[in-house]
Amino acid sequence: MGDQIERRKAQHIDIVMTQDVAAAGITTGFENYRFIHEALPEVNFQDISLSTEFLGKEVKAPFLISSMTGGTEKATSINRHLAEAAEEKGWAMGLGSTRAALEHEAYAHTFQVRKYAPSIPLFANLGAVQLNDGYDETHCRKIVEITEADALVLHLNSLQEVFQDEGDTDFQGLLKKMEQIARRLEVPLGVKEVGWGIHGKLAKRLFDIGISFVDVAGAGGTSWSQVEKKRTKTPIRKLAADAFKDWGIPTAEAVTDVRKRNPGKTVIASGGLQNGVEAAKAIALGADLVGFGRSILNEAIESAEALIQVFDRIEFELKTAMFGIGAENLLDLKQTENLKHIRLSSG
Amino acid sequence: MGDQIERRKAQHIDIVMTQDVAAAGITTGFENYRFIHEALPEVNFQDISLSTEFLGKEVKAPFLISSMTGGTEKATSINRHLAEAAEEKGWAMGLGSTRAALEHEAYAHTFQVRKYAPSIPLFANLGAVQLNDGYDETHCRKIVEITEADALVLHLNSLQEVFQDEGDTDFQGLLKKMEQIARRLEVPLGVKEVGWGIHGKLAKRLFDIGISFVDVAGAGGTSWSQVEKKRTKTPIRKLAADAFKDWGIPTAEAVTDVRKRNPGKTVIASGGLQNGVEAAKAIALGADLVGFGRSILNEAIESAEALIQVFDRIEFELKTAMFGIGAENLLDLKQTENLKHIRLSSG
Amino acid sequence: MGDQIERRKAQHIDIVMTQDVAAAGITTGFENYRFIHEALPEVNFQDISLSTEFLGKEVKAPFLISSMTGGTEKATSINRHLAEAAEEKGWAMGLGSTRAALEHEAYAHTFQVRKYAPSIPLFANLGAVQLNDGYDETHCRKIVEITEADALVLHLNSLQEVFQDEGDTDFQGLLKKMEQIARRLEVPLGVKEVGWGIHGKLAKRLFDIGISFVDVAGAGGTSWSQVEKKRTKTPIRKLAADAFKDWGIPTAEAVTDVRKRNPGKTVIASGGLQNGVEAAKAIALGADLVGFGRSILNEAIESAEALIQVFDRIEFELKTAMFGIGAENLLDLKQTENLKHIRLSSG
Amino acid sequence: MGDQIERRKAQHIDIVMTQDVAAAGITTGFENYRFIHEALPEVNFQDISLSTEFLGKEVKAPFLISSMTGGTEKATSINRHLAEAAEEKGWAMGLGSTRAALEHEAYAHTFQVRKYAPSIPLFANLGAVQLNDGYDETHCRKIVEITEADALVLHLNSLQEVFQDEGDTDFQGLLKKMEQIARRLEVPLGVKEVGWGIHGKLAKRLFDIGISFVDVAGAGGTSWSQVEKKRTKTPIRKLAADAFKDWGIPTAEAVTDVRKRNPGKTVIASGGLQNGVEAAKAIALGADLVGFGRSILNEAIESAEALIQVFDRIEFELKTAMFGIGAENLLDLKQTENLKHIRLSSG
Ligand SMILES: Cc1cc2nc3c(=O)[nH]c(=O)nc-3n(C[C@H](O)[C@H](O)[C@H](O)COP(=O)(O)O)c2cc1C
Ligand SMILES: Cc1cc2nc3c(=O)[nH]c(=O)nc-3n(C[C@H](O)[C@H](O)[C@H](O)COP(=O)(O)O)c2cc1C
Ligand SMILES: Cc1cc2nc3c(=O)[nH]c(=O)nc-3n(C[C@H](O)[C@H](O)[C@H](O)COP(=O)(O)O)c2cc1C
Ligand SMILES: Cc1cc2nc3c(=O)[nH]c(=O)nc-3n(C[C@H](O)[C@H](O)[C@H](O)COP(=O)(O)O)c2cc1C
Repeated sequence: MGDQIERRKAQHIDIVMTQDVAAAGITTGFENYRFIHEALPEVNFQDISLSTEFLGKEVKAPFLISSMTGGTEKATSINRHLAEAAEEKGWAMGLGSTRAALEHEAYAHTFQVRKYAPSIPLFANLGAVQLNDGYDETHCRKIVEITEADALVLHLNSLQEVFQDEGDTDFQGLLKKMEQIARRLEVPLGVKEVGWGIHGKLAKRLFDIGISFVDVAGAGGTSWSQVEKKRTKTPIRKLAADAFKDWGIPTAEAVTDVRKRNPGKTVIASGGLQNGVEAAKAIALGADLVGFGRSILNEAIESAEALIQVFDRIEFELKTAMFGIGAENLLDLKQTENLKHIRLSSG
Repeated sequence: MGDQIERRKAQHIDIVMTQDVAAAGITTGFENYRFIHEALPEVNFQDISLSTEFLGKEVKAPFLISSMTGGTEKATSINRHLAEAAEEKGWAMGLGSTRAALEHEAYAHTFQVRKYAPSIPLFANLGAVQLNDGYDETHCRKIVEITEADALVLHLNSLQEVFQDEGDTDFQGLLKKMEQIARRLEVPLGVKEVGWGIHGKLAKRLFDIGISFVDVAGAGGTSWSQVEKKRTKTPIRKLAADAFKDWGIPTAEAVTDVRKRNPGKTVIASGGLQNGVEAAKAIALGADLVGFGRSILNEAIESAEALIQVFDRIEFELKTAMFGIGAENLLDLKQTENLKHIRLSSG
Repeated sequence: MGDQIERRKAQHIDIVMTQDVAAAGITTGFENYRFIHEALPEVNFQDISLSTEFLGKEVKAPFLISSMTGGTEKATSINRHLAEAAEEKGWAMGLGSTRAALEHEAYAHTFQVRKYAPSIPLFANLGAVQLNDGYDETHCRKIVEITEADALVLHLNSLQEVFQDEGDTDFQGLLKKMEQIARRLEVPLGVKEVGWGIHGKLAKRLFDIGISFVDVAGAGGTSWSQVEKKRTKTPIRKLAADAFKDWGIPTAEAVTDVRKRNPGKTVIASGGLQNGVEAAKAIALGADLVGFGRSILNEAIESAEALIQVFDRIEFELKTAMFGIGAENLLDLKQTENLKHIRLSSG
Repeated sequence: MGDQIERRKAQHIDIVMTQDVAAAGITTGFENYRFIHEALPEVNFQDISLSTEFLGKEVKAPFLISSMTGGTEKATSINRHLAEAAEEKGWAMGLGSTRAALEHEAYAHTFQVRKYAPSIPLFANLGAVQLNDGYDETHCRKIVEITEADALVLHLNSLQEVFQDEGDTDFQGLLKKMEQIARRLEVPLGVKEVGWGIHGKLAKRLFDIGISFVDVAGAGGTSWSQVEKKRTKTPIRKLAADAFKDWGIPTAEAVTDVRKRNPGKTVIASGGLQNGVEAAKAIALGADLVGFGRSILNEAIESAEALIQVFDRIEFELKTAMFGIGAENLLDLKQTENLKHIRLSSG
């Protein structure tokens, strides 16, 4: 079982890096927004601050490394690079699904990055559907311990499971089980999607049962039906995948909706983001933090230095966008009136 | 006459399979809708049920094989494949225009598929305009008997007749005649178009005179003016056909309109559908059943097995779409609020 | 002077036939409308009537040959072909600008087509701006006599004159002069544009001074700035022409607006029309007659037979469109509710 | 320092002329407007007047040469050509940033064009941000003296400074400092952007502190982040620049907004304009003057004669557009109701 997971995790990275698995017929929706330029910002660029806090810890920038990997040897170095870069830049970091570590002790070390990132907010990750497959709070607690994480995130990935030959597709009664975990676990519990988005009403139901933060992980970037299409050995899955290329809630719409219905709650925007201007739009639309996954994977494989260069670019872009609208800090950005919807529909 | 029909029917299949006869400048309109993803479906994929009933019989899935052929030798095997696959999967089936069987006893067997499909809803088919060409309830009754059908469907194909050199183009007084047939025939009478669509007010007039079900057969798939363009020997018809490439009511608009004005009535969506996600949209917009024609013709020529694979794919797509919005059965799907109009106009 | 006009007229035909002078960035706007198909027309195609009347004469179809040529030898045969075809099919016909015939007796015969078309509505044509260049009612009367026309049409072509090296660009006080002509001339006086359109308020002012009919001659077809660009020897005109490629009121918009503000008045739609479906839309939007120019010029050069074939196609397309929405005659078409605006803006 | 500025100024011209530095994903927005053609203009083309006044002087046309260069040897001839052409045609002229002249006496002559253009409105130019870098009213006064200018314009170029390795990015407290200069300087003080636009509320704040005129210098033409991308030696700037390709307020939107909120004030439209039809739209949307920069640079390098030909073309296009809508002078054009918004969003 652990072996199967390892193989799957390795394949995911491989497929995502080498094949065309982009969503098609759907975009993140950020291109439908444009900032209204503030020609006289009345701000000193040097004074612009990106710092905020997350999971009770200060982060130097409102950024998050999205949950990606672990449980495979290749992941060991990827996770180390990510952790080192995150520590250096003060970003938060999500680990990939830590299930492999539970099922196979030998994989535990692939997730153990706390030594490289002592100060950042770090969270462990597990598929919510596992709660219908024998997992309970004991396992959740164990994952958190093994990874020395500040929080646990459960991911909702219904359609991915459908397109996996080995998928778990019983999503009944999960809300109740998540509520119990949330109540009993010593660390905060978050919920995320993996690329099809979470809407505002669902986020509300999640916050209502005690979930601490929601990552919308919306559509417009990687399409997981396309990824699994490359892996599946069932002809019908391969054929059906194409009909889901444009499935999901565009990230920009998901963030907007989740924020509107959940004032004051911690919301993370991820899904297809590529640069700091899009991040600025996400924050102006309501996000507290912005996550990057696929678009930093290349550098994550390479080295911490390569990652740091990307992080620097993203931060510079965000700062420049803030300068462009005269926002000196994230609160200014969140409250800006300088973001305009320039198109009616999302492609 | 029977010979002429046979030739026409054979040509239709041939042209549709080998030439470009797609509508242009018009689409089904389904691409203007997008499902709002429900990240936490609270459903077990295995429990999703597609069953419903049609013409008093249970069908295992809300699908229909659209009326396509008969009256030509080639049709014998096509119809057998279709019938066998329909029986296997529990789909309903429409026969192609059964006029040839009446005019030429020798062709009757090409429609006699009841032996391969004893349990499914099956219906016979006739051009409504034939009622102005000597046909009456006696003929209708005979067709039903020959085919052992559960119902008869009259098709409205005004523009196709115009583009046929041998076409019947007197469509006067048909409503009244259909009313009589509906009243006197022992089986239910349905009405369908062939690819240009039926709107809500006409559907209402049809239900008002006793028609049992309406298949919108809308635009966006095969263009029948383009098909007849390839057959006609009249230069003027060939030239004029192009001006009608974008004629018709997009299928999605037709279904929406017909449902809105005819609550509680049996509505079939067909015309250009290719997969189960589009079928899910059609049902969410108001269809009870969804028909597939052109997009399964390839496999229909090949074998029942090939067809079954397509049917499996379509059902899997529909189930996955339902899972994606947390619908456990067709009633949930029909009542969903998770379908969103994402564009203003239809291309 | 007559020589110069002859050269210009010959060049126009030549340029229009061989070079790309299409408007760009603007369309007729008819593509923004779609007919709602009426699956049960309750009409016999054979009974559909296209006849109407114009200038007190019956026309067999609501069609008009737009004013194109005359005053050049080449025009003699073109005009003869047009007249013969018009007589054969019962279309109305407009002659090209008959100014040459006045300035040069020798050219008069190029316009004298009444012998080939004894029964149709025929009208002579003159640039309205000539009224500021020495022309008055005497000249108008003479033109009508020479051509045995049923009416005279004055064309408004301000931008064309600007782009002609020899252009007359004093358009002051023309309304008053047109009013006088309208009052004193024995035949009806019409007004047309040449491809940039007439809007509703101007049409009203024209009808108010006694103009009998208005031909919108809107944008989306031939761009006259592009035509004159090919002729001009002034570098500045050549360079400036491109900025006017998308100038004008799209034909569909012009017709709609003119009709809305001028109920009961005689309105002609022309400008970029190519087929009978577009003609049907024009009529449904408010036109009484529909004119074709550039799109029949090829055949006009060739022969009357070639023209007749095009006329047959256009009539067949119109009839088929009417059949498609269940309109038995032009009044039905004018009053149809089956025309839908499917896009917001015109490209 | 003067050397550095000289190098920068020379590079700017070089890059703008030879490389692709166009804004992408954003346009000026003028293509979203279309003039409603007035087929009967009732105007004599010869009588159309373009004259207006600016900075207390009469200009023969509502046109302005946008601030471009100076402070480099190459600029000497460019500025001379521009001045000679401006004098010949009666256009206003803005000099490029005159900072170099202050820091390096030797460069002063590159801006001294008053001898070639004794009668036109001429203005000097300085980066507003310099007021945070040691510049004050004394320097402003000196620049005006050296250049014999009628006014001084301060440019706001926040994002350009961010993308320059040597950029000044402290934009704090500039409004107050501009207010002082405006109060104390003997000539009028204007404010402009450099290609990202000024919106209506900011313009109001500027007029409120005593600024005499505002040039929106909006987006859709040259992208200054793209220009600086070619110059920068910092990898992060090079990478980040692409995210700002579509930044800014489209020129048409900026003009509209600035005019709406500042009735009666002097507003200049510039940014990406290419011809006189766009200029006509800008004026109809509210501009008093229209500026051209990049699109006349080629000819500015060549000769005064080449420039004059372009100016003639632009004036001819403007006049023709005015003729096309029946406007005899700029007041008519400003008050026209013949400009229509044909699309909802700007690309
Ligand atoms: C290679 C790869 C592996 C991933 N593995 C996980 C995972 O184990 N758990 C999870 O919650 N999300 C996983 N994701 C999803 C991401 O966390 C994220 O939600 C999604 O990719 C959208 O963001 P992006 O477009 O920036 O990549 C993975 C993504 C990638 C690209
Ligand atoms: C080859 C072929 C033959 C057809 N023959 C008939 C027919 O005899 N009677 C009928 O009502 N419709 C006929 N149709 C129309 C279909 O039933 C259906 O309404 C139409 O094709 C739209 O659906 P589709 O786009 O899925 O093909 C035929 C369609 C095809 C492709
Ligand atoms: C070759 C050619 C010559 C024309 N000459 C005249 C003319 O003399 N007088 C006139 O009123 N319009 C003239 N027109 C304009 C047409 O009458 C018509 O208004 C215009 O072309 C728009 O219609 P179309 O797009 O169908 O050609 C001419 C058009 C063409 C193509
Ligand atoms: C080569 C070049 C140099 C420029 N230098 C200046 C400058 O020194 N000061 C300034 O205010 N604007 C400067 N600009 C900006 C222009 O004045 C103008 O605002 C901008 O280019 C938008 O107009 P355009 O699209 O017509 O070029 C420069 C533009 C160009 C193309």
